[in-house]
Amino acid sequence: MPLVQVDLERGLAQQLGSVISDGIHDALVEALGMAPTDRFQIFRTHSPDELVFDPTYNDVDRRQLVSIQILMVRMYDVATKYALFDAIAERLGAVGVRPEDLLISVVENGIEDWYAGTTRS
Amino acid sequence: MPLVQVDLERGLAQQLGSVISDGIHDALVEALGMAPTDRFQIFRTHSPDELVFDPTYNDVDRRQLVSIQILMVRMYDVATKYALFDAIAERLGAVGVRPEDLLISVVENGIEDWYAGTTRS
Amino acid sequence: MPLVQVDLERGLAQQLGSVISDGIHDALVEALGMAPTDRFQIFRTHSPDELVFDPTYNDVDRRQLVSIQILMVRMYDVATKYALFDAIAERLGAVGVRPEDLLISVVENGIEDWYAGTTRS
Repeated sequence: MPLVQVDLERGLAQQLGSVISDGIHDALVEALGMAPTDRFQIFRTHSPDELVFDPTYNDVDRRQLVSIQILMVRMYDVATKYALFDAIAERLGAVGVRPEDLLISVVENGIEDWYAGTTRS
Repeated sequence: MPLVQVDLERGLAQQLGSVISDGIHDALVEALGMAPTDRFQIFRTHSPDELVFDPTYNDVDRRQLVSIQILMVRMYDVATKYALFDAIAERLGAVGVRPEDLLISVVENGIEDWYAGTTRS
Repeated sequence: MPLVQVDLERGLAQQLGSVISDGIHDALVEALGMAPTDRFQIFRTHSPDELVFDPTYNDVDRRQLVSIQILMVRMYDVATKYALFDAIAERLGAVGVRPEDLLISVVENGIEDWYAGTTRS
């Protein structure tokens, strides 16, 4: 039950929203071994001025911001997380989202911190 | 100072937003012993395509997604969390939100991670 | 790579969005020693009914809600966090946002939980 929250520009969402959605989900399935039906994503669309970023931070040529927040259970090691990031960057890159524009962040909680339609999941 | 963030369809928010708000808050007061005045909620409304979910995951018959994220201080045991989930599901069920459509997630922080109008709270 | 998420009323964002953005960022740079180019902020604007709060909780005279969520790496002590809160309150106060209206919350993760355009950052 990861919960994926994507904040991006409205125009990008209209143009590529569904392939971005698929790309992120496929990366989670591939890199984390997530069940293909375990899919919960929230897209929040923005005017450009609502997404504030520095275009050069970390020596990256950033043109717009696509923020992907992933809330997931604390159980993956660092290598797995990096594999997840690479899988997301690769799949979104394949549909036209520049890896440089991604900001991916992970927050972890416990298995007991979820209710997905029934208490014990 | 829990912070409750609800993402739901625009139409549902217009129809039931205030009773959903009350239901979640009453559940926090009941299950966590929260002060009744300790209420901070953010509602974010969406078009259906912005809320992506699998309608069958975990053998649940899911029709729409109502995501409830609760950021709260790390101090509740598992039984208390499950009681909170059940209280939310029961109260929202009573106003017409199907428990199957709920995705509740908890993130925890420390008491020192909050500023609610004054530094020491 | 803190990620700052601000939820506020639409009218306030239109009027003061860019100075609020600068004020929060300057406070992070000052209180946490953040690099000035390390800036990632998401603004989400709301109608008043989407921001639900008690106007008196904690003996604070609250008139509207400006929620500032900061996701940052686990490495700051309590005094530093309080200094950050005070710096934000002071800087936003200087541009006309009442400190009483602020709800600041911090969530922490690890350095390995970020991808900002490249895997190793």
